[in-house]
Amino acid sequence: MAMAMACNIIHLLHFHPTPYRAFARTTLTTAFRIPSPFQNSLPKPISPPRSLSTTATFTWDDVLRVSQPQSISDSDDVTDLNGYFEKIKMCNRGSEMRFEFMPFVIENQIVGYIHNGFAENLRKFQKVFKFLPDNSNDGFHGGRLTLHPSLKTQEDRTRAVGEVVKILGEQQFPGIRNELYPVISSFGASPLFSLERAAAPYFGIKAYGIHMNGYVEKEGEKFLWIGKRSQEKSTFPGMLDHLVAGGLPHGIACGENVVKECQEEAGIPKSISSSAIPVGAVSYMDIDGYRYKRDVLFCYDLKLPESFIPKNEDGEVESFKLIPVAHVANVIRRTSIFKPNCCLVIIDFLFRHGYIRPENYGYLDLLQSLRSGDYS
Amino acid sequence: MAMAMACNIIHLLHFHPTPYRAFARTTLTTAFRIPSPFQNSLPKPISPPRSLSTTATFTWDDVLRVSQPQSISDSDDVTDLNGYFEKIKMCNRGSEMRFEFMPFVIENQIVGYIHNGFAENLRKFQKVFKFLPDNSNDGFHGGRLTLHPSLKTQEDRTRAVGEVVKILGEQQFPGIRNELYPVISSFGASPLFSLERAAAPYFGIKAYGIHMNGYVEKEGEKFLWIGKRSQEKSTFPGMLDHLVAGGLPHGIACGENVVKECQEEAGIPKSISSSAIPVGAVSYMDIDGYRYKRDVLFCYDLKLPESFIPKNEDGEVESFKLIPVAHVANVIRRTSIFKPNCCLVIIDFLFRHGYIRPENYGYLDLLQSLRSGDYS
Repeated sequence: MAMAMACNIIHLLHFHPTPYRAFARTTLTTAFRIPSPFQNSLPKPISPPRSLSTTATFTWDDVLRVSQPQSISDSDDVTDLNGYFEKIKMCNRGSEMRFEFMPFVIENQIVGYIHNGFAENLRKFQKVFKFLPDNSNDGFHGGRLTLHPSLKTQEDRTRAVGEVVKILGEQQFPGIRNELYPVISSFGASPLFSLERAAAPYFGIKAYGIHMNGYVEKEGEKFLWIGKRSQEKSTFPGMLDHLVAGGLPHGIACGENVVKECQEEAGIPKSISSSAIPVGAVSYMDIDGYRYKRDVLFCYDLKLPESFIPKNEDGEVESFKLIPVAHVANVIRRTSIFKPNCCLVIIDFLFRHGYIRPENYGYLDLLQSLRSGDYS
Repeated sequence: MAMAMACNIIHLLHFHPTPYRAFARTTLTTAFRIPSPFQNSLPKPISPPRSLSTTATFTWDDVLRVSQPQSISDSDDVTDLNGYFEKIKMCNRGSEMRFEFMPFVIENQIVGYIHNGFAENLRKFQKVFKFLPDNSNDGFHGGRLTLHPSLKTQEDRTRAVGEVVKILGEQQFPGIRNELYPVISSFGASPLFSLERAAAPYFGIKAYGIHMNGYVEKEGEKFLWIGKRSQEKSTFPGMLDHLVAGGLPHGIACGENVVKECQEEAGIPKSISSSAIPVGAVSYMDIDGYRYKRDVLFCYDLKLPESFIPKNEDGEVESFKLIPVAHVANVIRRTSIFKPNCCLVIIDFLFRHGYIRPENYGYLDLLQSLRSGDYS
């Protein structure tokens, strides 16, 4: 049984022999080697799994074991930042492919990016989309895409693009949710139209979310409440997650959304959640085939009473566990069992709470790497 | 008397009618208008004073008055971030002039930038400096400066450049301190030589420092200990400052330096200062004539006991005052009476502690502006 669990988690473990500079935001080519205790049983290099729908089958026992200070290798060095560099890299893939996309322009504002190959699917909808030649010198040679000038109102655009999404269907936009997402040029701007959420990455639309670190302090030691996603989730089933996180719907303020998600995801009453502190944001840009994700996550910290036990109310979380922050850091460094974008928010938490220190080699480069995204 | 104080501080006050986007890191051309209560007495636009050696003559009474929620104008809006954008801008002047500088290269690494005009002073020292033609396509058309190939060791370089600094003297390098500064290509790298500190900005050398926010929490409200610099300081005399801040000498770890500076600058014993938490870093690049500052400040937070009263031991601080964080934020937004680089660290504190919130218009742009520097 113990062996079975070890085998489950082994596929999510990796070791980082590469000097951290190799993890600057470029292509991820490094094959990860298995840490020495596992080298005999699985000698070939593995890549960390990263699929939206791959089910992670590890248990909390696996998580707790891999989180222990010396569980991996006697030579594992907690001051080695390579594992963090790699997690940032995993959220920022494919930047070298960005010129294979064309800007999606509405009312003279770039609202997204569409892959030249994917755009071919849209060419036949001449009453909805218009292809423009490229007149600028910004590296995008595939021209620009815009909406037909007859589509002047938000409603017209939403309806027309919605019909295209419906016709192209699941084959082009897997996981259609019938949930509309606002298309905006920057945070706080008025939506230019709304788009099916599953189609948003294919149009390279900016997306905003909130992630909350729920922590407890006991006798000077900090602990983070970690969630394990339901196996039924369509994205990242079974993986580790924040106590509370969610997309930011249009028209709801960040703080208000935190209170709402706190109740739904962890049963945290408003009397507690209203103390959540906004502490900044992280952003990432991830190109994966035709999908171009441009996300900004507003980060919150909530110090919870020791006595509080979270309880999921919407069925999206399987269970929660309270883990010392230093051990969570080990899980982030050593494995890929967290939903990838949570890693960025937790690395930010580790910086702000002094778990990553200037004395660690690569401190400033890691900070630069975490912060070099586009926050607009 | 009250009028005299009001007049002292009025020259350091300004109001920000410009939409925040105008404060993106470009030239600062906006003239600042006086807030309405002062418009009758001083109707002409003023620019915020910013001189290394201008003595600020305001008192703590002035500071406390201007920090009050509605002391400036009934229409002053605490959610208006323009005052913060402007402070970031003030630390990042002259970026449009960066191509008037030439890279200073040692062992194939860029260690600094020297103004083409200033470099003429160095041309006659042919046994020390060597001018190379520019072979790259990186925008620097003035060539490159390096040291004479005969200067192979750290000691030789330090001695040879030191002699040049001595010959050019106070006229070219005002404020010579006889204090050596390590010349490195990035944080943690070995020094390539050492240079008189007053000459460092003329060579565009990277500099590192530590800034510590010392705060107290009373019944859920946070207060910051603020220092007022001695009138005898050669730089920014009389201006507001952090409780503890200082340059980072070579060979001393950040945390160790914090403990040392805590003792010297505020009389904080190691038993307290060792709890200071590293919380990240801010950076800025400021071009002012021939001076090119490229600084990275490691930021620390130290939660102090309510009973602790700081006491300066090295004569560099005139006095300290404990001020509610929300009021410190008003001083930052409304005035230029803080030493400019302290503003960046305090704005970072305001972000991390939730005093600047996602609901404030321009939140993400301000975060981007604060973080867009070079941390290497």
